[in-house]
Amino acid sequence: MAAHCRRVGLALRPHAKTHKSVRIARLQLDAGAIGICCATIGEAELLCSAGISGVLVTSPVVQPANIQRLVRLAEGGRVMAVVDDAGNLRALSAAAAAAGARLPLLVDFDIGLGRTGCATLESAVELARLARALPGVLTAGVQGYAGHLQHVEAFAARRELAAGQAAKMAELVAALGAEGLAPGIVSGGGTGTHDIDHGGVFTELQAGSYTVMDVEYGEVELTAASTRPVFEAALFVRTTVVSANAKGMATTDAGLKRFATDGPRPRIARGAPEGAVYGFSGDEHGCVVFSDASGRLEVGAALECIVPHCDPTVNLYDHYHCVRGDELVDIWPVDARGAY
Amino acid sequence: MAAHCRRVGLALRPHAKTHKSVRIARLQLDAGAIGICCATIGEAELLCSAGISGVLVTSPVVQPANIQRLVRLAEGGRVMAVVDDAGNLRALSAAAAAAGARLPLLVDFDIGLGRTGCATLESAVELARLARALPGVLTAGVQGYAGHLQHVEAFAARRELAAGQAAKMAELVAALGAEGLAPGIVSGGGTGTHDIDHGGVFTELQAGSYTVMDVEYGEVELTAASTRPVFEAALFVRTTVVSANAKGMATTDAGLKRFATDGPRPRIARGAPEGAVYGFSGDEHGCVVFSDASGRLEVGAALECIVPHCDPTVNLYDHYHCVRGDELVDIWPVDARGAY
Repeated sequence: MAAHCRRVGLALRPHAKTHKSVRIARLQLDAGAIGICCATIGEAELLCSAGISGVLVTSPVVQPANIQRLVRLAEGGRVMAVVDDAGNLRALSAAAAAAGARLPLLVDFDIGLGRTGCATLESAVELARLARALPGVLTAGVQGYAGHLQHVEAFAARRELAAGQAAKMAELVAALGAEGLAPGIVSGGGTGTHDIDHGGVFTELQAGSYTVMDVEYGEVELTAASTRPVFEAALFVRTTVVSANAKGMATTDAGLKRFATDGPRPRIARGAPEGAVYGFSGDEHGCVVFSDASGRLEVGAALECIVPHCDPTVNLYDHYHCVRGDELVDIWPVDARGAY
Repeated sequence: MAAHCRRVGLALRPHAKTHKSVRIARLQLDAGAIGICCATIGEAELLCSAGISGVLVTSPVVQPANIQRLVRLAEGGRVMAVVDDAGNLRALSAAAAAAGARLPLLVDFDIGLGRTGCATLESAVELARLARALPGVLTAGVQGYAGHLQHVEAFAARRELAAGQAAKMAELVAALGAEGLAPGIVSGGGTGTHDIDHGGVFTELQAGSYTVMDVEYGEVELTAASTRPVFEAALFVRTTVVSANAKGMATTDAGLKRFATDGPRPRIARGAPEGAVYGFSGDEHGCVVFSDASGRLEVGAALECIVPHCDPTVNLYDHYHCVRGDELVDIWPVDARGAY
């Protein structure tokens, strides 16, 4: 992803909400990332305390206690935040000014997802004007994230939809320029639009899932040039058969507590007969259903599954076990697991 | 639940896989439970190291490293395990005998769930015979869990289905008796069958969800006597509105990482206008959709939601915040969060 971004002239600020790992964030920075995105103040604290700079919290920080935590990070000069609400902006300004800090902010703009962001161009411009007038804050740019487009499977369809979103963002950038508020940073995009969001309005890319991939993204045609995955799955859940008495299936120890369940089924990558599919058998158990009656796995057999959806699956574990072939070469903490 | 079990003459060995809390396990023991069930060796270690006895691991323990951990607990005399496979039984026996320990085992019998357990009466009896012949193990009884019946909503339908399962268990108990292997413990049942699994073959109940409840169990007619929930929801996820620019909805900070998503939607218990429903807007965000256009929640507003499915939701958090009314009265660790 870093090489791609260099090639297309886009800065990369990858999203740590996927991996929640200081170690992986450092690898991303070493490869050329200009900073790291995160979703929660707890993640930001972990990244900043590890000495990482250019940390962008991509969700509004609104609770008074969290605003205080954000201001403490702003004093260290390592963090930026987003804002989409005048009341929240005033609260951020007051807290930062009281601490003698200067918090860089991106105005969050809703380019179609309907989740966070100013709903209209006018309200976004007005918020930027207010930010300019208030103490303790600094308008560093704008953010717009088309999350609903990232998993549109066909590349051409995704590119067409993304063009409409980028056009909205370009209108905002022009309107801000006309006010003397031209944004230095235009941040957005994801793994699904990484080969789309360049050569236009965005200055940087927030992609996260590419780091480890999952079943969902494995089905997306990520670039125009190729239909096979550009990024390979690097994240697997290893599970063991604990019962093998039922016909046509085996029971494992990885159920609803070991995979995120909002997406498709886990996909068996290794350890099961061809055609076997994975299912859930409750909180503590999964099942491997064989494609024909001759299929069998013994108690104790190990399987590895590509995870349905990487971000919420990583959040279920305390460690990555890093393997090369069959060798365990390192264990990395999921530093920000449960860090809200 | 303890009072119910006393009344109907059933022992209670509640399942800690729901709450993963030593503190709550102690409250259950203080109320009269004879021991505590758990699902993983990691949970068993935490319970045993807290001085709790009568710990039953309700899933087969098959990995060599986990068998060693189990044997270490057996040396302390606090743990029982289940078995449904002759190879696994020999491995448990060898490890326990080598350590000079005696591991009490329940023969796990599949009474209809098709997940773990011996598939036939004959194979279950044979396994009990083998256990009698092997060193290091002790046949303490049998286990059969009708997990697929727990959420059958109508009480009468659930009772009828459960009667069939209990009859299978009674056949096994009789067959074992004829072999001189009459089981001391017949363990099974759950919150959904707590008012069904008594006066018959079962000697003890493994119910877990009743401790905190959830949306799924809230919809189940738990007893013959009443259609309203016998157990009230005690577990809520508190979330904050972080964005309120979109019409007809508000965006919160509790998404796919803060609720288990295998069940129904979270149910808003407090903090939103009548008729509002909760949905998911990605990994980090939820949405509150209002029932009419006048609905609104401001940025910073707090909501509390009943969780869709308690067990895998608890596993996402490190602490319970214990409240009485609006007062925070204690913080309890989720000791076994992620303890596999």
